[in-house]
Amino acid sequence: MKLLRNTWYAAAWSRDVGADLSTRELLGEPMLLYRKHDGAPVAMIDRCPHRFAPLSMGKRVGDGIECGYHGLQFDCSGACSKNPHGDGRIPPGARVRSFPAEDRHGLVWIWAGEPSRADASLIPDFSHLVSPRLKTVGDEMTQKAHYELVVDNLMDLSHVNYLHAPYQHVDDFLQAKHDVVQDGSALESRRTVAGTRAPQSFRPFLDDPDAPVDYWLNIRWHAPGCCLLETGVVPVGRPREHGLVRIGTHIVTPIGAASTQYLYASSRNYRLDDPDADDETARWQQMGFHEQDKPMIEGVQTRMGERELFSMRPVLLATDAAAIRARRLLAAMIDAEARSDQPVPVAIA
Amino acid sequence: MKLLRNTWYAAAWSRDVGADLSTRELLGEPMLLYRKHDGAPVAMIDRCPHRFAPLSMGKRVGDGIECGYHGLQFDCSGACSKNPHGDGRIPPGARVRSFPAEDRHGLVWIWAGEPSRADASLIPDFSHLVSPRLKTVGDEMTQKAHYELVVDNLMDLSHVNYLHAPYQHVDDFLQAKHDVVQDGSALESRRTVAGTRAPQSFRPFLDDPDAPVDYWLNIRWHAPGCCLLETGVVPVGRPREHGLVRIGTHIVTPIGAASTQYLYASSRNYRLDDPDADDETARWQQMGFHEQDKPMIEGVQTRMGERELFSMRPVLLATDAAAIRARRLLAAMIDAEARSDQPVPVAIA
Amino acid sequence: MKLLRNTWYAAAWSRDVGADLSTRELLGEPMLLYRKHDGAPVAMIDRCPHRFAPLSMGKRVGDGIECGYHGLQFDCSGACSKNPHGDGRIPPGARVRSFPAEDRHGLVWIWAGEPSRADASLIPDFSHLVSPRLKTVGDEMTQKAHYELVVDNLMDLSHVNYLHAPYQHVDDFLQAKHDVVQDGSALESRRTVAGTRAPQSFRPFLDDPDAPVDYWLNIRWHAPGCCLLETGVVPVGRPREHGLVRIGTHIVTPIGAASTQYLYASSRNYRLDDPDADDETARWQQMGFHEQDKPMIEGVQTRMGERELFSMRPVLLATDAAAIRARRLLAAMIDAEARSDQPVPVAIA
Repeated sequence: MKLLRNTWYAAAWSRDVGADLSTRELLGEPMLLYRKHDGAPVAMIDRCPHRFAPLSMGKRVGDGIECGYHGLQFDCSGACSKNPHGDGRIPPGARVRSFPAEDRHGLVWIWAGEPSRADASLIPDFSHLVSPRLKTVGDEMTQKAHYELVVDNLMDLSHVNYLHAPYQHVDDFLQAKHDVVQDGSALESRRTVAGTRAPQSFRPFLDDPDAPVDYWLNIRWHAPGCCLLETGVVPVGRPREHGLVRIGTHIVTPIGAASTQYLYASSRNYRLDDPDADDETARWQQMGFHEQDKPMIEGVQTRMGERELFSMRPVLLATDAAAIRARRLLAAMIDAEARSDQPVPVAIA
Repeated sequence: MKLLRNTWYAAAWSRDVGADLSTRELLGEPMLLYRKHDGAPVAMIDRCPHRFAPLSMGKRVGDGIECGYHGLQFDCSGACSKNPHGDGRIPPGARVRSFPAEDRHGLVWIWAGEPSRADASLIPDFSHLVSPRLKTVGDEMTQKAHYELVVDNLMDLSHVNYLHAPYQHVDDFLQAKHDVVQDGSALESRRTVAGTRAPQSFRPFLDDPDAPVDYWLNIRWHAPGCCLLETGVVPVGRPREHGLVRIGTHIVTPIGAASTQYLYASSRNYRLDDPDADDETARWQQMGFHEQDKPMIEGVQTRMGERELFSMRPVLLATDAAAIRARRLLAAMIDAEARSDQPVPVAIA
Repeated sequence: MKLLRNTWYAAAWSRDVGADLSTRELLGEPMLLYRKHDGAPVAMIDRCPHRFAPLSMGKRVGDGIECGYHGLQFDCSGACSKNPHGDGRIPPGARVRSFPAEDRHGLVWIWAGEPSRADASLIPDFSHLVSPRLKTVGDEMTQKAHYELVVDNLMDLSHVNYLHAPYQHVDDFLQAKHDVVQDGSALESRRTVAGTRAPQSFRPFLDDPDAPVDYWLNIRWHAPGCCLLETGVVPVGRPREHGLVRIGTHIVTPIGAASTQYLYASSRNYRLDDPDADDETARWQQMGFHEQDKPMIEGVQTRMGERELFSMRPVLLATDAAAIRARRLLAAMIDAEARSDQPVPVAIA
C-alpha cells in the first residue's frame, strides 16, 4: 500500500488513548498508543525489536514500557532504557520506531513520515470539535474497504439522495450549483440550493419546518483522509450565520489495503444541551454510516476485489469531479514524495 | 479459472428468481438475477459501471434497475437509461454486461459466451422436471469444491456401494455390464444388473420387495456440468417402461475455483401424490447429498488443495472411465474455444 | 516449509491413538493414525491415491483400511490390497505413503525421512514419562505459530521471570550462572541459583518454604523439536537427588508454516498420589501454557507475519544464546540433509 508519509494521520479520538497501553492496526503497522504521566500521547510500533513480542502485552514502567516476554525496557522515544539480561549492556539497535504524536482538537494525531519534519501546525483544523458554541456527537468504526473508497463516498455527496433517502434527501440537489475549489492541497466541494424544502434531518429543529430555506452543503478534503463537512439551512435570503448548521468530522486512516479506520462526528450549533438532539444525531450516525454507507462501501470493495479503481475504467459523471480530483491530487502527492530527495522511512509496509 | 464460455449454465431454479433483485456468485462473477414484468428472467453483472456498487443494493424501476449509490438507471439489457447528474447525458461506456437468460424446464439458464451465439435450443433437455407423469422433489446446495470434482462424483456412480451404502447399495453392481457412450458433446455411462435384489431405496415401493429385478443406472453428462441420471427396477425380464423409475437432475455451475452451485432433484414415476414418498426423497437427498457426498467431495478438495487432478497423477481404475472421459472432453472443448477465432468475452475472470 | 526429514517426530500421545481411524495435520500433511490389532501404531498419508479422498472417512478392514469413496483397500504398509472394480487388478502405483511409527514412552513417534533409515534407538529419551517414581500430568495444544517460535520460548527460559511471574519467578535468575552445552545434535541450557528463595511453584510442597534453597533449571533440546526441562530445589548445599524435582516434557511437531502441535507434561518426584498436586500442575499448565505462553507466542507470530526471524534482524541478548544456537544447529542439519546424497522423500510438501 503506497501511502502519503509526510503528513498527520488521526490515530484515535483523544478520549480513547489513556495511560494504559493500547494497540490498533494503522498504516499497515501495529501501533502502540498510550499517554505519559504529563498526558502527552505516545505512538510507536507495537513490536519489541528483540523477539518481536507485542509491546502492548507488557506494562508501563514510568513513562516507558517493559516488554512482557523477556523484560527489555524502552523509553517513550522508543530507545531501549534497560536490558535485564547478562551484563545489562544495551545493544546498539535496540530501538522501537516511534512516531511524533500530538493531541489536537480532541484527536490524537501521528506523523507517518520523517520525524524531523513533523510540524504540528500542519495538523488540519478541526477546532470546531472543541468549540463551546457547538455540541459534538461522534464515534468510530472500521470499514472493510480501501480508505480512498471511503473518501470517494464523502467527496461525492450526491449519494445522500439515494443511499440516505429520505432522511437526508434534498430536493433539487443533483442540479444544484456545484463548485469544486482547490486550496493548496485541500479541495472543497460546495453545493447550494436556494429556496428549497428543508431536508428531514433539519425539520424537527426549525420553527416552521415548511418554510422555504436556503440550503448548503460543503465538504472540504485535506489529504490524505480528513474531511470536514458543513451543512446548513437558513430562511430564504438570510445570512448563513443565522442558520442551523452542522459541522461533520469524517477522518479516515488506512488500516490495511482493504480496511479503514473511520472517525466521525457531528457538531451542531443548535439545542446544545438537548439530549434528544444528541440522540437524534447518534441514531442518524448509526443508520447512515453503519447501516447505509458501510454495507455500500464494503460492497464496492467486494465488487472491486484487489483491483485499483482506474484500472477498472469507471464511468465518470459530473458528480465525480471532487472525488476524482482528490484521488489525482493524492496520487500526485504520493508520487512527488517518492521522487523527492527527502528520505521516507521504510519501516511502514 | 478456465471455463467453457459458449454454453448454457443453470443459474437457479426458476422458482427462486422473482421480481425482486437477487444476487449470487456464478462463473466467478457476482450475478444479478430478477424477472421483468412479463416474467422473463434477466441476468447481468451485479456491479454498476460507475463506482462499482452492487446493483442488487438498488431497486427495480420498471423493467430496469436503479443503482442505490448514486442513482444511475439501467434497462434490462444493461444499457444505462438515465443519468440523474449534471446535464443528464449518458456516458458512452455506461453499460452493465448482461447475459442471455432463459426459463426452461423449471430452471433459469444463462449463456456465458458471445451473446449473439446464444441459442435456446442448445439448452440440455431437462423436460422431465416439468412432466405431469413424474413427481419432482429437489433443492440446491453449495459444495466447497471445484465443479469437476462434483461431476466426477456423479460420473462414477460406483461410489453408491460405499458412500451411500446401505441405502443405495446394489448387489453385483461393481461387476455389472458398464458401457460408456459418447453422443456429440454428451457422454453416457450405462450400467445394468439383471436379476438382482432391489436396492433399499426402491423396496418400500415394490409390491414384492424380495422378488428379483432387473436394475439399471444410466447417467448422461452434458458439458460442462449437467447430469441426468436414470435409475430403475423392473421385475426380471419385463420392459423398463413397466418399472419404477427415478430421473435424477444434477446440475453444477461453477461459483469459483473451489466452490460450486449444485442444483439437484429426483423425479419419480410412482406414487405421484404420496407425500410420504416426497418425504422419503427429501430425506435421502439430505442424507446422501448433504451428509455423505458433500463431506467427501469437500474432503477431496481439501486433500487436493489448489492442485489440478492430473498433476497429482491419480491411480485410475476401470470405474473412472466415464468421469475421466468427461474431463478430457471438457478440456478439449475449452481448448478449442480458446483457439477459435470466435472472440470470447473477457469480462469474466 | 523446509523440515528435517531423517528424524522422529512425536505424532500424538499414545493414549490418543486407538483402533479407530483418526487424522491430524502434521509436517504439512494430513496424517492418518490408528493401531493394528496387535497394538502397533500405523501412520500414513490420509489421502487415497485413487481420487484423493481422506482415508479417515473410510473404515478399518482387518489391519488395513477401505476407502469410503470407491472402496479401494490398503494394508497397513500403505500397499493396495484390493481393487473391487472391473477385473480387480491392482494398479502399480496404488500405494499410500506410510511412515515408520513407534510407541515409545507414552508417545507415538513417526519417522519423516527415508524409511530404511528409521532406527528406533534414535528416538529421544523421554522414559521419565513412564517412570514409576514420577507422577506425570500432561495434555496437548495447538499453537498458531511456527514451531521454532515455540522452541525459542522453551530455550530462553528467562521469560519465566516476566511472562510467568509471579508463579514461576526466580530471584536472581537473570544473573544466574548460565551454561549452554552442545552434546552431538542436542543442546542443553543450564542455570543454577545457589541459596535463593524457593519459587512459588515449589513452596506448597516444601517442609519449610522460607528456608533458602539451591535452585536449578536445565533445558535440553533435541533437534528438531523435543525439549526436556528439569527444574528443582534442594536445601542449600544438599545433593540434587534429595530435592523436589519436576521433569517437563515439551515436544513440538510442525503442523504447517504457522501452526504447531505442542505436547506437554510435567513429571514430579513428590506427592505421587496426591490429586491436589495433580490439580496444581494442571492449573499451572492451563495458566502458563494456554493463557500466558500461547497468546505471547501467537502474538510474536502475528507481529512477524510471514517473515523469517533473521531477516527481521532481531536484537540479540545474552539470554538468546541457547535458542539462537538451536536455530543455527537445526538450519545446518536441514542444509546438510538437503546436500547429502541420501535421497529424501519428496512427497511431503
